Amino acid sequence: MIIDIHGHYTTAPKALEDWRNQQIASLKDASLAPRVADLRISDDELRQTIEENQLRLMKERGADLTVFSPRASFMAHHIGDFNTSSTWAAICNELCFRVAQLFPDHFIGAAMLPQSPGVDPKTCVAELEKCVNEYGFVGINLNPDPSGGHWTSPSLTDRHWYPIYEKMVEYDIPAMIHVSTSCNACFHTTGAHYINADTTAFMQCLSGDLFKDFPTLKFVIPHGGGAAPYHWGRYRGLAQEMKKPLLEEHLLNNIFFDTCVYHQPGIDLLTKVIPVKNVLFASEMIGAVRGIDPQTGHYYDDTKRYIESAALTAEERHLIFAGNARRVYSRLDSALKAKGR
Amino acid sequence: MIIDIHGHYTTAPKALEDWRNQQIASLKDASLAPRVADLRISDDELRQTIEENQLRLMKERGADLTVFSPRASFMAHHIGDFNTSSTWAAICNELCFRVAQLFPDHFIGAAMLPQSPGVDPKTCVAELEKCVNEYGFVGINLNPDPSGGHWTSPSLTDRHWYPIYEKMVEYDIPAMIHVSTSCNACFHTTGAHYINADTTAFMQCLSGDLFKDFPTLKFVIPHGGGAAPYHWGRYRGLAQEMKKPLLEEHLLNNIFFDTCVYHQPGIDLLTKVIPVKNVLFASEMIGAVRGIDPQTGHYYDDTKRYIESAALTAEERHLIFAGNARRVYSRLDSALKAKGR
Repeated sequence: MIIDIHGHYTTAPKALEDWRNQQIASLKDASLAPRVADLRISDDELRQTIEENQLRLMKERGADLTVFSPRASFMAHHIGDFNTSSTWAAICNELCFRVAQLFPDHFIGAAMLPQSPGVDPKTCVAELEKCVNEYGFVGINLNPDPSGGHWTSPSLTDRHWYPIYEKMVEYDIPAMIHVSTSCNACFHTTGAHYINADTTAFMQCLSGDLFKDFPTLKFVIPHGGGAAPYHWGRYRGLAQEMKKPLLEEHLLNNIFFDTCVYHQPGIDLLTKVIPVKNVLFASEMIGAVRGIDPQTGHYYDDTKRYIESAALTAEERHLIFAGNARRVYSRLDSALKAKGR
Repeated sequence: MIIDIHGHYTTAPKALEDWRNQQIASLKDASLAPRVADLRISDDELRQTIEENQLRLMKERGADLTVFSPRASFMAHHIGDFNTSSTWAAICNELCFRVAQLFPDHFIGAAMLPQSPGVDPKTCVAELEKCVNEYGFVGINLNPDPSGGHWTSPSLTDRHWYPIYEKMVEYDIPAMIHVSTSCNACFHTTGAHYINADTTAFMQCLSGDLFKDFPTLKFVIPHGGGAAPYHWGRYRGLAQEMKKPLLEEHLLNNIFFDTCVYHQPGIDLLTKVIPVKNVLFASEMIGAVRGIDPQTGHYYDDTKRYIESAALTAEERHLIFAGNARRVYSRLDSALKAKGR
């Protein structure tokens, strides 16, 4: 069984984007405000967008199940206020829930949160609860920078975020630390902001002692952990100077990296430097990099091929492809076991 | 011969820091303003700070020459205004010049610029000219974010920066793209802001067409290029989607990476993924990571050992240790040739 823990609904019907644009327009002219009921997307439309895209590629590549969340770049928490984000998150999460209902063997949900810059994260808890309790979601995406590239929120180790962490621990769900679109012209969204956020989140955790307060809290740092594995010596050295424990003890009971690294040497480094128990298979398909690599003739984001070619034992490969995901996403494991999988 | 292209004067006498603190205090109370002449540091003091630190380690490790610039984290361009930065840059550059005069076989200067947020970069040209013409400096450090972690300047590909690029091309000097201390609490200076800035600068160049306007402009992206080599597949794929040429043609005639990556697997990836002609030896010693790696028994930042252990031919190793530096820093090459080296 192969579980991809990082997929977004990047192929949602155009009506979704149109509704969002209308919502954004209404921020300047309230009379334009769309009602939630104005958005009508049929099951057939959902089926089509999935069957022709994500599910087709999963079958071609041999992935069985995707942890599926709303499109990351569309979360755009910097737009509007809490109510804006709240309505938008509810719509996007419901669509992912419907996809999971339509394709229960292939998709299971992870929630976007209705974050908004400067708003207390505890306001996100109700949506989180709904997604876990009513939709059966198994994780959340937590945006460490809801400002969209201006970085105005406290560090992830600050008590500011604790209401979300308390709920995560209660439900035993991990958070993927994932920013959204950059509205800072310095940062290209998928080429700089995403990767920088991964690196930043890792370093915030390294500098703090968050996991002393929450020993069972679990963060997944996507895109192969940003720059962290490549600079693992730097991070080991910085932790040493800060008198922190070894990274294995300080962070690696709580932090996990996905495999969204789109070439063989990157995956080779990741799987060599980071303990196998901390690496979870993912592709972020269909995402930032959609083309075919002329050097290999295969899709850049067909990360399964890189794992298969990496110097790993069969057991290690199994952990990366499924075992680790079932351990970190315990509700995913329970859902699979309930189906005898 | 082994040339380290990335060293900062991190060990300057304490009087320098005291003077700077006085200058900062004077921003609130002008009566406290120190005069430049108040800073008195003798040649003996300079000699001692170098002989006991950088030069000692260079000799122990077997490096011959360091391209030496003011302490990066102390540039702090976000403090005060242009006049603040102008006075501070002049002082710091002069100290590096004096070190180069005291140890002409082992140090040659690179300039910090008197950047200030929101101020036209052309105001930096006079200091640059002085450092090249009077001090014999062979490069500059260019800060893409003089705000110190708030990222308020235009992309490096914007015409905003062209006055500096025009002077760089005229003098045939490279710029190391190097931020300073972070005053944004989200970003740890050496663990996040430095690495993020490297990644950001690379992606800014990838997104633009700067090197069409300046075919001979040269940027050195430090710290092993941030996350870029680790995510080389992502960047190749993003360039492809943006209809840019292959990275070799689009960027690698103009962008170079140093070897400040503090463990063997990172250097192995760097030297495997990036063409050898684009990799320049550096350690940033004495810098961000000063300890000894318990896994190896050697200093994390003794990067020469990693290059020696990487799968490289003798010729490739020579290029990384010296040949590439002499090509990219043409004024360094001229200075060495003038001495018969």
